[in-house]
Amino acid sequence: MLISVVRGIGQVDFMASPWTGLVFIVALAAGNWRYAVYGVLGSAVATLTAYAFGAARDRVEMGLEGFSGTLIGVAFVLYFGMSWMTTLLVVVGCVAGSVVTSALVTLLKPFNLPTFTAPFCIVTSVMLLAAPSFERVRQGKIGPALPSAATGRTALTWSDIWQGMFNGIGQVFFQNKWYVGLIFLVGLVVGSWIAAVAAVVSSLIGMAVAWVLGAPAADIAAGLYGYNAVLVGMALAGIFVVLSPAGGVYAVVGAIAATGLTAALTTFFTPFGGHTLTWPFVLVAWAFLAAVPAFAWLRRAG
Amino acid sequence: MLISVVRGIGQVDFMASPWTGLVFIVALAAGNWRYAVYGVLGSAVATLTAYAFGAARDRVEMGLEGFSGTLIGVAFVLYFGMSWMTTLLVVVGCVAGSVVTSALVTLLKPFNLPTFTAPFCIVTSVMLLAAPSFERVRQGKIGPALPSAATGRTALTWSDIWQGMFNGIGQVFFQNKWYVGLIFLVGLVVGSWIAAVAAVVSSLIGMAVAWVLGAPAADIAAGLYGYNAVLVGMALAGIFVVLSPAGGVYAVVGAIAATGLTAALTTFFTPFGGHTLTWPFVLVAWAFLAAVPAFAWLRRAG
Amino acid sequence: MLISVVRGIGQVDFMASPWTGLVFIVALAAGNWRYAVYGVLGSAVATLTAYAFGAARDRVEMGLEGFSGTLIGVAFVLYFGMSWMTTLLVVVGCVAGSVVTSALVTLLKPFNLPTFTAPFCIVTSVMLLAAPSFERVRQGKIGPALPSAATGRTALTWSDIWQGMFNGIGQVFFQNKWYVGLIFLVGLVVGSWIAAVAAVVSSLIGMAVAWVLGAPAADIAAGLYGYNAVLVGMALAGIFVVLSPAGGVYAVVGAIAATGLTAALTTFFTPFGGHTLTWPFVLVAWAFLAAVPAFAWLRRAG
Repeated sequence: MLISVVRGIGQVDFMASPWTGLVFIVALAAGNWRYAVYGVLGSAVATLTAYAFGAARDRVEMGLEGFSGTLIGVAFVLYFGMSWMTTLLVVVGCVAGSVVTSALVTLLKPFNLPTFTAPFCIVTSVMLLAAPSFERVRQGKIGPALPSAATGRTALTWSDIWQGMFNGIGQVFFQNKWYVGLIFLVGLVVGSWIAAVAAVVSSLIGMAVAWVLGAPAADIAAGLYGYNAVLVGMALAGIFVVLSPAGGVYAVVGAIAATGLTAALTTFFTPFGGHTLTWPFVLVAWAFLAAVPAFAWLRRAG
Repeated sequence: MLISVVRGIGQVDFMASPWTGLVFIVALAAGNWRYAVYGVLGSAVATLTAYAFGAARDRVEMGLEGFSGTLIGVAFVLYFGMSWMTTLLVVVGCVAGSVVTSALVTLLKPFNLPTFTAPFCIVTSVMLLAAPSFERVRQGKIGPALPSAATGRTALTWSDIWQGMFNGIGQVFFQNKWYVGLIFLVGLVVGSWIAAVAAVVSSLIGMAVAWVLGAPAADIAAGLYGYNAVLVGMALAGIFVVLSPAGGVYAVVGAIAATGLTAALTTFFTPFGGHTLTWPFVLVAWAFLAAVPAFAWLRRAG
Repeated sequence: MLISVVRGIGQVDFMASPWTGLVFIVALAAGNWRYAVYGVLGSAVATLTAYAFGAARDRVEMGLEGFSGTLIGVAFVLYFGMSWMTTLLVVVGCVAGSVVTSALVTLLKPFNLPTFTAPFCIVTSVMLLAAPSFERVRQGKIGPALPSAATGRTALTWSDIWQGMFNGIGQVFFQNKWYVGLIFLVGLVVGSWIAAVAAVVSSLIGMAVAWVLGAPAADIAAGLYGYNAVLVGMALAGIFVVLSPAGGVYAVVGAIAATGLTAALTTFFTPFGGHTLTWPFVLVAWAFLAAVPAFAWLRRAG
């Protein structure tokens, strides 16, 4: 069970290896020890809830019931600050997230699609939208929306590029320090060389697309245009689609689409004090996997 | 056919008994005679449309084609005032609602989910969003959004609690007087003791959650955090999920989730002059029913 | 392949005839030569992408992979102005639109529903939402939202009526000159007399509904309340539902619903600098087709 909880942290990036999970915990702690504590708490509550309600044993063991909880824990401590109320919200949120996961498994079964991080996105969006109505929740700190509305220079410096590449990997877990992203990358290498390469390339694709279209350099360097591309790139390059030349092109198109959708959803969520989370990844990955059967040169994996 | 129309009013709370429907008409009239007239009108138009288009006979007879029309009638007279235009809108809205009901029956069949009040929510949200574009509709009175944006004291008085409990039951039909909620509760007792108990308990759960999180006492006392919990609680406690200890826990979690989602959707609909309606109930009930097959200790009923 | 590209332009209005496609190109050119160029470009890129990825041959040949690309091309040059950046966006947008088309084909298959113009709506809404984040895209001209927020007189003149009828047909392609709508109508006659009649009647229904509810005459005359009714009317009158007396009534109800939803979605998209596009058509047509099996007197065609 403890191993399942650790796997639940690695599964955020599709890695079932507990070693990857351990490195990811180190990465979170390098960002701030609170992230590590709440991330593990979230994975544990989600995994235990699924186990207690009698969810499929193999899903529990592989950490597939825990990864949304991991992100719920990290996001809640980021947005609401560390407190007993936040701890309570994480527990309730992970129980609800467990139900949402099972609901999505049922709803997506006819289309053979995984839930991805949709349960995390749903629970966290709901909580962020609900927060202004509740005095005891509002007292927590609400972090800035991602990407920031910052404008400014659009030319990239060398340090923007290399730091942004690492940040695109770290922002999957809301982390914006380059060395945290680097530790996550080490975790990926431990789990799968192909996924690590896909993450680096996709992060760079996301940055390149945003740069061509004229996004502010500060947002690009913070990894805000990279993290959804990173997740889509990993998902389409070998994990859910068989790796091939056509599959590689498909993954690149997916990473580009994820970057555009990141900007679009940021605008969409703005009137709601919005937080883009990993919605762009979820929607692009669903669309691109659902489209696979229509294309003769692509094959689903796994 | 007349009995089907009356059943269509009770089916808002899942009760097929025509006696429940009659008591509910009395309750609406106790709020304002206009609600009773338009509620019956809506149920009649929706039931007749379904009958005329040749919808499944048993669904028509059980009132399952009428209950969304009931709520459309009540909501339209509440938001647009009593007029010939409103009457016309109710008729057209119920015809459209009948099509939406049939569409949802088809779309939800692979997942074995009922439509709940989704057709009402869709038609009413569309009409509320459309109203500002139309001069003859705008002239009607647009009621205040639910829950109100009121802030203020968060401590609950004794009368807040007992009135709020009844109001949570009455707000399912947009009613905010405690004695109207009491009459609805009588109607529930006539239909099903279990549903009545579930309604009372769920209304209190919704209030408790909102109180813990620090919602304004005025909103809690008006039943604004209770009505979605009431519907979810009834749906999950015996009506769509077999009653059992695990099922009871599940219903409690559902009522908690519905309360959080009520606050979230209120924020979401705000930029659109929003009205939360029973969207939180519909979404939570769909998710919790879809998740049932994944949990070994729960069974679908009916 | 060239014929498939031309068919892709006619398929916006469900016409497989290449002659219809040719007349439509003339109509676009009568509006502005840029619309014709980008419309053909969009259809070509989308068709070629589908062909290259190995989509179903019959769909490619009938132009069913091209029509969303047509609208993407026309919409992008309208909203972002003619430039190399817009051309690049059209190419990338059509590639993404091709993936979205295939994804929707998979997702809608259990319900036997066509994609309609949903891929165009999704890609264009995403790009319009993303534009404010990107300096090089923002520099293009963003056209006014449809329908306009214009208020003013609600009484219709004779020229409002006959011009509005043609404009309702032309607005399917964003065209607001009556003679452009007339040329589109000629193209429809070439393809199908029934569709042409349905288009004229539906455009008038949309205008009548908006007039009864008190919409500004300027919006009605511009065809802004007609174009979704036109598409729904054509789709339900003979093309996707067998033509019959009941089917005719059903198409009329659909055209009315599309007009109401047009106003509603215009309000919904306003906080996002919104553009209603053909979303109302897509949603109403999906609902009305999904509901057909529930109604004994209606039959699906094709």
